[in-house]
Amino acid sequence: MASLTVTERTRHRRLREQGSLDRDALDAILGAGFVCHLGVQVDGDLLVVPTVYGCDGTTLYFHGSVASRSLAAAPGTQVCVTVTHVDGLVLARSVFEHGVNYRSAMVFGTPRHVGDPDEKLAGLRCLTEQSTPGQWDYARRPSRKELAATALLALPLDEVSVKIRTGAPEDGEGPDAELGLWAGVLPLRTAWGALEADPLLDKGIEPPAHLARRAGTRCPGTRAGDGAARLT
Amino acid sequence: MASLTVTERTRHRRLREQGSLDRDALDAILGAGFVCHLGVQVDGDLLVVPTVYGCDGTTLYFHGSVASRSLAAAPGTQVCVTVTHVDGLVLARSVFEHGVNYRSAMVFGTPRHVGDPDEKLAGLRCLTEQSTPGQWDYARRPSRKELAATALLALPLDEVSVKIRTGAPEDGEGPDAELGLWAGVLPLRTAWGALEADPLLDKGIEPPAHLARRAGTRCPGTRAGDGAARLT
Repeated sequence: MASLTVTERTRHRRLREQGSLDRDALDAILGAGFVCHLGVQVDGDLLVVPTVYGCDGTTLYFHGSVASRSLAAAPGTQVCVTVTHVDGLVLARSVFEHGVNYRSAMVFGTPRHVGDPDEKLAGLRCLTEQSTPGQWDYARRPSRKELAATALLALPLDEVSVKIRTGAPEDGEGPDAELGLWAGVLPLRTAWGALEADPLLDKGIEPPAHLARRAGTRCPGTRAGDGAARLT
Repeated sequence: MASLTVTERTRHRRLREQGSLDRDALDAILGAGFVCHLGVQVDGDLLVVPTVYGCDGTTLYFHGSVASRSLAAAPGTQVCVTVTHVDGLVLARSVFEHGVNYRSAMVFGTPRHVGDPDEKLAGLRCLTEQSTPGQWDYARRPSRKELAATALLALPLDEVSVKIRTGAPEDGEGPDAELGLWAGVLPLRTAWGALEADPLLDKGIEPPAHLARRAGTRCPGTRAGDGAARLT
């Protein structure tokens, strides 16, 4: 099991049992999502911006319009990108012991503007395939003009904090267990719905297999190895 | 329709059609979630921390241990709290026009430490009821010692930016429509699973009605007026 490097920023100070140094756990968290929250200073203001991302195992990519203020401000400055999956409510006997089952990764670093055309295409491919495997080879790829209008940023996965909480509440062995109250977990599930065709779509154009087979499956879905179980 | 006040920070500069000044839209976005991303400067580092919140219509509350570095650093400093709901993938004919249907609210401001015991209890009640309506009256409420170990912060909803994207892709009338590619939306749904009892729970303790009726319903669930439709 590969281990993450600890820095002053990523050292788990409290709730150490929720901290993880497992590299596989990081990869699983980043692989299971496609929206992150980017924290960045823009003109003296702190912004937390939801944005899509892609991750190739060593680098996290995010993108947007070249006119975006938050993307223009990010290169060369310290940012924090957080990916969070909420897995359920932890319903304890006491309000104090309530909590959330979750998996999160915080990535610290200084993003780099991607200018090289080949790396830019590879990064955009990674970003597209992160949310929709198969789509890069199906949809029309970016033109030269579209590439020029797109800013792509790369953030290395060098300094990362992973936190995970799973399982039951923790007051089952304390005095509160005598209260006779129900306790447990209410899980939260995310799943893809049924495909909704663009109303402007010509009749007779059927969705490709990589999209059709996702409908009704757990998110993230049809990536190899994630066990895209059909919900019952 | 009440309108949100625009400031230099919350003025929608780009993608103005995704910006909303509708107060009801803000209330709906904040009401539909219970996890936010708090952006805060801690000892010179920018952190984006996922945390639970409650909202009473004028104030957003978040909390944690008095030992938490991010909560200790937040009062009196400028923070940004973002709540995001991801509703689906927008699958266009071109990669360039791909996007995400989402609803997000960014709250800017300077949080205040809540010291008054009555306001603290009311804020914790709001926070508990946000994720789990009915739970404050069911679970054991915080003791004096537990209250002392809990930091509660209040952030007024005075400066907020709301962004929403809904609907189909936007290249259905351009030249890409001739490519014969499928385009549309793949919706993402969040739902509560079946209750999982704490393995330490005494047999015979049944879940209360406010929890039992949530299983299998759309998240956020059983709040009045949100139409907690059972998933089919």
